[in-house]
Amino acid sequence: MTKTYARLTPLADSLPATVPFVGPETQERSRGHAFAARLGANENTFGPSPKAIAAMSNAATDVWMYGDPENFDLRHALAAHHGIAPENILVGEGIDGILGYLGRLLIEPGDKVVTSQGAYPTFNYHVAGFGGVLGTVPYIDDHEDPNALIAKAAEVGAKLVYIANPDNPMGTWHSADTIQRMIDAVPDGCLLVLDEAYIEFAPEGTAPTLNIEDPRVIRMRTFSKAYGMAGARVGYAIAQAELITAFNKIRNHFGMCRISQAGALAALDDQPYLAEVVQNVAGARARIDQIARDNGLSTLPSATNFVAVDCGRDAGFAKAVLDQLIALDVFVRMPFAPPQNRCIRISAGRPDELDIFASALPKALAAARV
Amino acid sequence: MTKTYARLTPLADSLPATVPFVGPETQERSRGHAFAARLGANENTFGPSPKAIAAMSNAATDVWMYGDPENFDLRHALAAHHGIAPENILVGEGIDGILGYLGRLLIEPGDKVVTSQGAYPTFNYHVAGFGGVLGTVPYIDDHEDPNALIAKAAEVGAKLVYIANPDNPMGTWHSADTIQRMIDAVPDGCLLVLDEAYIEFAPEGTAPTLNIEDPRVIRMRTFSKAYGMAGARVGYAIAQAELITAFNKIRNHFGMCRISQAGALAALDDQPYLAEVVQNVAGARARIDQIARDNGLSTLPSATNFVAVDCGRDAGFAKAVLDQLIALDVFVRMPFAPPQNRCIRISAGRPDELDIFASALPKALAAARV
Repeated sequence: MTKTYARLTPLADSLPATVPFVGPETQERSRGHAFAARLGANENTFGPSPKAIAAMSNAATDVWMYGDPENFDLRHALAAHHGIAPENILVGEGIDGILGYLGRLLIEPGDKVVTSQGAYPTFNYHVAGFGGVLGTVPYIDDHEDPNALIAKAAEVGAKLVYIANPDNPMGTWHSADTIQRMIDAVPDGCLLVLDEAYIEFAPEGTAPTLNIEDPRVIRMRTFSKAYGMAGARVGYAIAQAELITAFNKIRNHFGMCRISQAGALAALDDQPYLAEVVQNVAGARARIDQIARDNGLSTLPSATNFVAVDCGRDAGFAKAVLDQLIALDVFVRMPFAPPQNRCIRISAGRPDELDIFASALPKALAAARV
Repeated sequence: MTKTYARLTPLADSLPATVPFVGPETQERSRGHAFAARLGANENTFGPSPKAIAAMSNAATDVWMYGDPENFDLRHALAAHHGIAPENILVGEGIDGILGYLGRLLIEPGDKVVTSQGAYPTFNYHVAGFGGVLGTVPYIDDHEDPNALIAKAAEVGAKLVYIANPDNPMGTWHSADTIQRMIDAVPDGCLLVLDEAYIEFAPEGTAPTLNIEDPRVIRMRTFSKAYGMAGARVGYAIAQAELITAFNKIRNHFGMCRISQAGALAALDDQPYLAEVVQNVAGARARIDQIARDNGLSTLPSATNFVAVDCGRDAGFAKAVLDQLIALDVFVRMPFAPPQNRCIRISAGRPDELDIFASALPKALAAARV
């Protein structure tokens, strides 16, 4: 008889060894060469503030020290920035890390969770990882559907309901009023996860007023997108103090990279640079729209640093275009669920990268049309 | 009736909001000024290789990109370094992060886990965080007791049994032969967590041969100690491929800081610098021993980058000495459990820091003796 030493929990045993996304490096290794334009992961190719780069560079010398487990300086700077109290802010290892902690706090096997069909896979990954049962509602006109999400959450007695505003992967968004109505309609026993990873790119009037007394919502923000620091792994959550404190029961207190803490602090402090990036990204969105129209395609309006390009046919065609782009060294991704998967998703990159995309797209379309 | 929106799991609800360690920054904030010598967290004050610092500094520019979720380059470099396959290596957010993942994979409420009374609190934190029931055995002659640990694991039907070799907080160690006998005695249904965070400081013959086919043990290594990169959060585990793969079910795939990945790769590549640090740390240990003896105290032999100084009386006295040292701006910690808490634990820091310790210790002892 073979002996067993690592006895996984029944839940862990039942999970697939999976990954929400295949990284571009993995694709590069299997292709044998690098991408010419990295436009698939909604990374901010304009990069972080030079002040943040300098701060990280300087912090490298101090990396023999653990980071401050309280993230004191960053939480206080964020509190000042948002005009709220530090007790309402959790700093964690990216929104991904915080979603994992949130799942662990709230979800046990059989608990119900609601999201949109085709929304953020990493949220779904964590829900499944704690045994949650995911209910989904479809997008409506390429937007997440707040009413349907709330109705479904009430129907199944969900512990969590998730929405991203602006949305990923479509880039569409709702007004602050619509989202506030959604918050107001959250059923008793349910917490709304409002993922605002892309909020800095969105027009004024997209984010509801921060109300730290509201127990119905936890809001997720990040330094990965507008601040251009995806690789640093710094996200934060805003919620009622009682919920924020609960994370201290389970989080990896010494989990934050000290260099990343320093970088985020400096990035936050450089709001003029942020404004410049937001402007550059808006320019890149317009450029992607122009490139699409030059090729007879249309785009969806976007309040993010990416644009969904409607390839005008079915998912198979969009996938063929995507495969051709990748073969032409342009890293892009596409939505997972129909009918959104008629689109491909292009990050709002630098002009030189969009030149490469502009040159590759007609070739990719021609090849896909064969 | 007050409505409830965030329904914590019964387990999460039952956990205290706690932290395994209070960070030195927290103490500095409450004191109102900084420590003069940071000798409490076994950080490597000699710092990382200049090549690692340069690599992190350079990587700051690329931080707009997510890190490679497969940690491909680092896993392959570690595999070459250890002469094993990359499939047997998990890279994670420090040993702390990996211990959290391991707990999640194996522990559900009521599961039994065994460790030494007074051993690594963060391991205990994660076990409790998943509802595990911790059984402990005492140290024997200031060493962890492999036989007692195994006997206890068998007695309670433990899923995990933990030992650190060399040990923290005492710095003592067992030979590879003793640890191999422990591995050979692991009961069916139990996994040995062999925490080798300090192994690079230990004499030859402390680490058993790596046997990646052995399903009875998972070994933890880190860049936080000898490699001097505590703030970067890079640890790794070595185990049978099947167990390593299981982490892919639940880990935060995009959780690693890209800068830290680059730093670890460069640090690993600079083995001459590592050898130099190990030598410097040995010198610092000897110096701490001399300082202790100059003050009529003795030390425990250590195979780590810290030294347990036996204050020669009870825990209350050791605590008084520690408090006095902290009042004199020397950050130190002490073991938690009797009789080990008759000692204080001093990190093997730079000569300038040990000068400060040497000057503070007689004053602290005099004040504590009052």
